[in-house]
Amino acid sequence: MAKRVGTATLLLENTPSVEAFGAIGSKREAEGPLGGFFDQLCNDSTMGEQTWEKAECRLQKDAINVALKKANLSPPDLQYIFAGDLLNQCTSSTYGLRDLGVPFVGLYGACSTMAESLSLASLFIEGGFGEHTAAITSSHFCAAERQFRFPLEYGGQRTPTSQWTVTGAGAAIVGKASAPPYVRAVTMGAIKDMGITDANNMGAAMAPAAADTIGRFFQDTGMAPDRFDMIATGDLGMVGSALLLELLERDGWKLQGRHADCGLLIYDRQKQQVEAGGSGCGCSAAVLCAYILPAIRRGDLSNVLFVATGALMSTTSVQQGESIPGIAHLLWLSSSPK
Amino acid sequence: MAKRVGTATLLLENTPSVEAFGAIGSKREAEGPLGGFFDQLCNDSTMGEQTWEKAECRLQKDAINVALKKANLSPPDLQYIFAGDLLNQCTSSTYGLRDLGVPFVGLYGACSTMAESLSLASLFIEGGFGEHTAAITSSHFCAAERQFRFPLEYGGQRTPTSQWTVTGAGAAIVGKASAPPYVRAVTMGAIKDMGITDANNMGAAMAPAAADTIGRFFQDTGMAPDRFDMIATGDLGMVGSALLLELLERDGWKLQGRHADCGLLIYDRQKQQVEAGGSGCGCSAAVLCAYILPAIRRGDLSNVLFVATGALMSTTSVQQGESIPGIAHLLWLSSSPK
Repeated sequence: MAKRVGTATLLLENTPSVEAFGAIGSKREAEGPLGGFFDQLCNDSTMGEQTWEKAECRLQKDAINVALKKANLSPPDLQYIFAGDLLNQCTSSTYGLRDLGVPFVGLYGACSTMAESLSLASLFIEGGFGEHTAAITSSHFCAAERQFRFPLEYGGQRTPTSQWTVTGAGAAIVGKASAPPYVRAVTMGAIKDMGITDANNMGAAMAPAAADTIGRFFQDTGMAPDRFDMIATGDLGMVGSALLLELLERDGWKLQGRHADCGLLIYDRQKQQVEAGGSGCGCSAAVLCAYILPAIRRGDLSNVLFVATGALMSTTSVQQGESIPGIAHLLWLSSSPK
Repeated sequence: MAKRVGTATLLLENTPSVEAFGAIGSKREAEGPLGGFFDQLCNDSTMGEQTWEKAECRLQKDAINVALKKANLSPPDLQYIFAGDLLNQCTSSTYGLRDLGVPFVGLYGACSTMAESLSLASLFIEGGFGEHTAAITSSHFCAAERQFRFPLEYGGQRTPTSQWTVTGAGAAIVGKASAPPYVRAVTMGAIKDMGITDANNMGAAMAPAAADTIGRFFQDTGMAPDRFDMIATGDLGMVGSALLLELLERDGWKLQGRHADCGLLIYDRQKQQVEAGGSGCGCSAAVLCAYILPAIRRGDLSNVLFVATGALMSTTSVQQGESIPGIAHLLWLSSSPK
């Protein structure tokens, strides 16, 4: 049974295994430094569909199908799917996965969704609620731009702190296999709002939540950053990453050399002109499933903290002058079950 | 430990208890048949706030505070909050609950959210992941109308199949107390899409999902409808309720006399001119917390199936000609733990 330590961390004693994972991307992701690691890449952003929203549904469907195939499973083998995305009413997930016939737990955690869904998928295995569960999320640059910012046709200028929404998806299947990566701990985060109101500076809005969750994990477990090969935040980008390191250092935790950010790993910031880095639910999901989980399976990474971060605003809340609440959920992923 | 039976049902062996519950409503809810059962009623829909969206945040905040007070708990006593709502990016939940400092699991299940959140809150207690968890959701007529349909100022005509979004919220705290109501079983539903495209007929879109989940529960457990005093669906309204009974009867399950629908209980349909009935996340949440849970606690109801239903579309998906996927999650609530 899971063991609670400190204020917010669960150590998983049955150490669920991430049995299989699939990552899908599009053209810009293919051209980035991780292009070679994706399972499937589409050379345009339509994925062969008629609208960008339908293309994003397709990303989710393709991601789960790749993961199922690798796990040698079919949809009826899954007892639960945990999924969500950035679109209003999370329609990439509900439409993308509606044909599977699997009990569906819809989530909204903005760009923290991959950590949220994988936490729940792992805890459901830990609790004995199922044999196989799946965690999925996605994002799509064009669908996100027109929903949250401007129609692409308008050609809006991007600010230096803005981030580029990844067109991609990641899906992970969790079960009881004796194969790494294992999920050793889960720390679900609380909402933090430090008063940032600039919707083009989401890294700054999310950094305090990431610092809070990471600090809490170290405090809860008594472990230190040097226990981990990599502490990977979701999509803080350049601005948020610098802030995170500063906030954690103030609390006595030094991450330098171990910190990586999925938003900085996925693109070559300068060459690909993505300003402060990548973002979107699909950013941390794709980096996790294309790059981090395979490296743990191979043994190239032993212990990783995966900390996806989300900015929980809407266009309405921003228009009403509200600040941007952030959230971060954390998983300890390991090559060893004990 | 929870015991899986059949294809999708978990029988909870540690029988988590719904320790406390709070229900908030507004003027129209006060005037309805359940008006006397609410914990708090505001006599206008602003809740004293400047915008309808902020009023909905306030509904959530008030609901959790009422429930905490009744449980004699404060926010740090909660290990997890499960919450969601209908607004884009679920901002009623994220803004309404951001100050609590409690680990936050954001959900999107449309009007099924109360059953989704209460299922997860109960399973987290069952799995030993915490001592106290909370499930919360809300909806607001004015905020929902301007987001999903027309600005109120436009004075749009309502169709006979349309439903009236409840301005209200419900919050439930789950823990290990030896007090009814107990959560005896959870059946999380799969997405069902029968091709309904009329966004003003959500009852019809959701009925097949409700029929699927209810039928699955009976099949999984071997129990029959006569085991229950009440089988309460979320917000199918007149149209969806008739369809549900027809669909279940076709499969051999007769609910007549035991079926109730939260969307029909909360308003006097004719007197209050709400067409096919009430709807919205807050509908089933408020009816559950104001009426059903207290009746189980008092012993007036012994065994209830609570089946909240959601229509998982967005304005974008409807505009792109998509049909409306439905979902329904079920809990068996009982006055007895065994």
